Amino acid sequence: MSEFKLHGVIPPVVVPLTKDRHLDLAAFERTVNRMIDAGVHGLFFLGSSGEVAFLTDAQRYHVMQEAVAVVNGRVPVLAGIIDMETMRVVDQAKRAEAFGVDALVATAPFYALGGPKETERHFRVIREHTDLPLYAYDLPVCVHTKLDPTMLVRLGKDGVIQGVKDSSGDDVQFRWLCLENEEIGHPLSLLTGHEVVVDGAYMSGADGSVPGLANVDPESYVKQWDAYQAGDWETVRKIQDHLARLMFVTRHVRATVGFGAGVGAFKTALWQMGVFNSNQMREPVQPLEGKDVEEIVNALKYCGLLPQDAPVRE
Amino acid sequence: MSEFKLHGVIPPVVVPLTKDRHLDLAAFERTVNRMIDAGVHGLFFLGSSGEVAFLTDAQRYHVMQEAVAVVNGRVPVLAGIIDMETMRVVDQAKRAEAFGVDALVATAPFYALGGPKETERHFRVIREHTDLPLYAYDLPVCVHTKLDPTMLVRLGKDGVIQGVKDSSGDDVQFRWLCLENEEIGHPLSLLTGHEVVVDGAYMSGADGSVPGLANVDPESYVKQWDAYQAGDWETVRKIQDHLARLMFVTRHVRATVGFGAGVGAFKTALWQMGVFNSNQMREPVQPLEGKDVEEIVNALKYCGLLPQDAPVRE
Amino acid sequence: MSEFKLHGVIPPVVVPLTKDRHLDLAAFERTVNRMIDAGVHGLFFLGSSGEVAFLTDAQRYHVMQEAVAVVNGRVPVLAGIIDMETMRVVDQAKRAEAFGVDALVATAPFYALGGPKETERHFRVIREHTDLPLYAYDLPVCVHTKLDPTMLVRLGKDGVIQGVKDSSGDDVQFRWLCLENEEIGHPLSLLTGHEVVVDGAYMSGADGSVPGLANVDPESYVKQWDAYQAGDWETVRKIQDHLARLMFVTRHVRATVGFGAGVGAFKTALWQMGVFNSNQMREPVQPLEGKDVEEIVNALKYCGLLPQDAPVRE
Amino acid sequence: MSEFKLHGVIPPVVVPLTKDRHLDLAAFERTVNRMIDAGVHGLFFLGSSGEVAFLTDAQRYHVMQEAVAVVNGRVPVLAGIIDMETMRVVDQAKRAEAFGVDALVATAPFYALGGPKETERHFRVIREHTDLPLYAYDLPVCVHTKLDPTMLVRLGKDGVIQGVKDSSGDDVQFRWLCLENEEIGHPLSLLTGHEVVVDGAYMSGADGSVPGLANVDPESYVKQWDAYQAGDWETVRKIQDHLARLMFVTRHVRATVGFGAGVGAFKTALWQMGVFNSNQMREPVQPLEGKDVEEIVNALKYCGLLPQDAPVRE
Repeated sequence: MSEFKLHGVIPPVVVPLTKDRHLDLAAFERTVNRMIDAGVHGLFFLGSSGEVAFLTDAQRYHVMQEAVAVVNGRVPVLAGIIDMETMRVVDQAKRAEAFGVDALVATAPFYALGGPKETERHFRVIREHTDLPLYAYDLPVCVHTKLDPTMLVRLGKDGVIQGVKDSSGDDVQFRWLCLENEEIGHPLSLLTGHEVVVDGAYMSGADGSVPGLANVDPESYVKQWDAYQAGDWETVRKIQDHLARLMFVTRHVRATVGFGAGVGAFKTALWQMGVFNSNQMREPVQPLEGKDVEEIVNALKYCGLLPQDAPVRE
Repeated sequence: MSEFKLHGVIPPVVVPLTKDRHLDLAAFERTVNRMIDAGVHGLFFLGSSGEVAFLTDAQRYHVMQEAVAVVNGRVPVLAGIIDMETMRVVDQAKRAEAFGVDALVATAPFYALGGPKETERHFRVIREHTDLPLYAYDLPVCVHTKLDPTMLVRLGKDGVIQGVKDSSGDDVQFRWLCLENEEIGHPLSLLTGHEVVVDGAYMSGADGSVPGLANVDPESYVKQWDAYQAGDWETVRKIQDHLARLMFVTRHVRATVGFGAGVGAFKTALWQMGVFNSNQMREPVQPLEGKDVEEIVNALKYCGLLPQDAPVRE
Repeated sequence: MSEFKLHGVIPPVVVPLTKDRHLDLAAFERTVNRMIDAGVHGLFFLGSSGEVAFLTDAQRYHVMQEAVAVVNGRVPVLAGIIDMETMRVVDQAKRAEAFGVDALVATAPFYALGGPKETERHFRVIREHTDLPLYAYDLPVCVHTKLDPTMLVRLGKDGVIQGVKDSSGDDVQFRWLCLENEEIGHPLSLLTGHEVVVDGAYMSGADGSVPGLANVDPESYVKQWDAYQAGDWETVRKIQDHLARLMFVTRHVRATVGFGAGVGAFKTALWQMGVFNSNQMREPVQPLEGKDVEEIVNALKYCGLLPQDAPVRE
Repeated sequence: MSEFKLHGVIPPVVVPLTKDRHLDLAAFERTVNRMIDAGVHGLFFLGSSGEVAFLTDAQRYHVMQEAVAVVNGRVPVLAGIIDMETMRVVDQAKRAEAFGVDALVATAPFYALGGPKETERHFRVIREHTDLPLYAYDLPVCVHTKLDPTMLVRLGKDGVIQGVKDSSGDDVQFRWLCLENEEIGHPLSLLTGHEVVVDGAYMSGADGSVPGLANVDPESYVKQWDAYQAGDWETVRKIQDHLARLMFVTRHVRATVGFGAGVGAFKTALWQMGVFNSNQMREPVQPLEGKDVEEIVNALKYCGLLPQDAPVRE
């Protein structure tokens, strides 16, 4: 397990639905294959972008089953085991393990208020119940706890976790996490979830990225990774500017805020690009429509992801 | 269903565990009977104080099964159907229904970020899947969304929800909720969760209370309710002063913060009073010990819940 | 100084401006006299409702000078000495003292981040520089620090502060503050700033209130106080329902949020009622207009503060 | 004015005090000269690190007077005009102008709650009252408002502001600010305040930095800037790693939190390095001592800012 170290581009997979909210298997296969063909280094299912919070347990199993089958060993499969508190997360871990995924991703506990002692103990208890590689998912915007770099490195040193997916938005703490990890021999694989500033994370020493936007443009993220490996920082930066601009798809949504605007925009983009068959969302979130769809099409055209004369699909 | 209206004192039941973290059935029966004998008007299982966030689904079923059996129709049984987003909550609702509970309690969706549209739709979708009375649980400290009074009253008018458990700590909004509810014919039963200021909530027009502290001292809350019904405000107020002082059991905990300090203190008090056999907590929370236990014993003595010469149980 | 103890209704004075944003002296005299005639027990100038944050130092002096002159000893005059950190507040204290006010009101330090040590030291340093009675203003919504009850009572015992204006919205902590203050002999005069739930605060043992809404309806707050003194809780409660409903003037403002909606609505109400000559605000806030004014007029009519046939002033 | 564009390294000057809390002029001259000699491109006085919140107006004038005299035209002098709301800030602006500073730095309004309309109007009103170049200071941790990139670029296009000092910690929004600024011809000079990740900000297109840590190690920041200008990204990155590690001086302070830990650590480092004569702070903040000083000395030694055998100054 301690040999397992992720690197490179590992998109959190956005999941296509049919109009009546079932998993759209054809589109699912299409988007997964498109990302693997673009050269991604792993795929993360059941993350926030994968609507994990909205899926019943049965729906989660369905996604994992299809994910393992479609990926079929071509790249490592990570699975989110997101739930409120420790033993519920352990339950999710055991089920994910049974589906044959390669690694697990867990957040800090949420809902009940706690402190740093409970957070650290949480990861240690999960480790007692699984042998799979475990990634800590630092996501304060959803779980309202920031994971402390010193604690993460201690968990890495003790073999409790094998890496971190950092979506904290706290680039200062991420820099310190990289430094502390390096000082004790780099036990953790450190991945950034901030698709808009992956270049800065690479400067900080990130081992890879988990960009939701890579669902829309996987090739650019892979090229950026290759440029980073080659030390070609000007290319890293130029591609990042393109991707930061592409992220405008999520910026001007009027119908709603938060998840429905962010993942809703990714789904809409993939639908308009022909990868998805619809931009349907899970209850209680509604799909984007009208003016919001038009703006997303405009942003895709501006960034060259759609031809200038592409019509708006309906 | 619309006939179902709760009133009075409805404690959220704190659940005793054995040292090895199994449900302590003897103590569970003892604490439930003690509250019913004191005259409470209902019992709320699987709320935050009931460690709902920490229980696996199997453990939740176990609690519901035993709760329905022990209560045996003496008072209404409410069950928390707490989960991240809508369809997971619907899953919980269906299971709770199967166990024969009398009413359901659901929070706003959490984890994924959303806005007021998603919150309102969430409750409407739940209603489509169950015929049981449904209470909205306003708990921003856990779910990070405040329920808007105008929306709640609209849901009440439409028969979507039958009441509100308000643990928002926002007494201004609660006053407005009471006023708006009254103006359209009082469709909602409005319960306060703030054990320290129930008298103020009664002044505002609350239909009852859901005080965690009633696990420790159910009689005082029942007497306070009776005094309120009799219009004896000086007694209402005097009892509240006693209960507010008793809440000091939770105030000086040093070992941790949040849930482990609050519910941890209630469990410790019930253990020291002989109702529980231990103050064990669910992972990753640890039970209070040493100086923290001593301080709780002192607070119980100060308020007359333990005799002055009671030794500290170990 | 330790003899000085405020009680009763002490409105934070909302200040009328001419259209070109000068102090409207005629209206200022009118509103002050109206409140004193209604029987208020003190007046608080340069509080948040008094636009203290928006006034230059010269404008603050002007308000204090006129306030002391107009009140002319009829009731105690409190003055806010609101500024960022300790020595700036001390500067404000010395100037207020020179204008002959009776007591000072200071918040926790703000802007620079600090902890409880700095907050306590802040009040102790202010005390070293003035002999006037000092009230601690607990206003986390503006200063982002909640004052701890135990610290406040310690400062009261040491003669550093003589009272608290609580606008924290935390009714649990306020109850505890009342209890702790009582246990050591009631050194502090405890005033609530929450105009919508003053009855609950009186239940908790408040010595008085500082309701912004009393600018609009001072008589009701005075009558409520008198009912409280007479132990007539049903009247306390009934008046509170009226006042809570009247507060709807601030609830449906569309043009802006926060201060401009709250104090903006009070100014608009006073203008429509003929106490003020305009509802002008200080830069960068703009006065309410159009539909917002109409809604406020409707709320005033609903609560009997304006006759049903009153036209909208323009 | 629109010609005035800052670039490069512009440290926010930390101000030395004597033990009895007067400006230590000798040390002030020493630290200013040390930074200018290291090649900094400007100096920012009366920022957060310059204790602006703690200084009385008289003390602010003193600092500006001495700053202009000591700098004596060698680099541009920026002055913070930090105050609560618009007209108070205008007052500060006029005084700063009288002292001959080269540019002004203003935050969003704070204390009173407002919305985006008030924030934009605030900057426009300031512009009406001064002809000096104006920088918007984005500092939500102190003023609790995040400045929107689209609004900032609009203010830049209209000539209201000439640049931004971004200390928001929101690297995503900063990237978008850089992109939007570029798209309309780069009217704004964009400076990052995040000393730990300046390399990422340069990747994003920042025109310079305002690093508090440059008080301690100005040379490294200047070398990093030069490397950036030369396109030598590996050097940019390596220097950043050194500086991020040096920032550990602020990380392990035990005595307090926030400003007293951050600026307190910078002052302590400068004192131990012989640039300052003491690490005195302004009330109510206390200087660091004992173990905290030792840890800072250790961090300085680790990073080569003090020789290994340097004793701890007392």
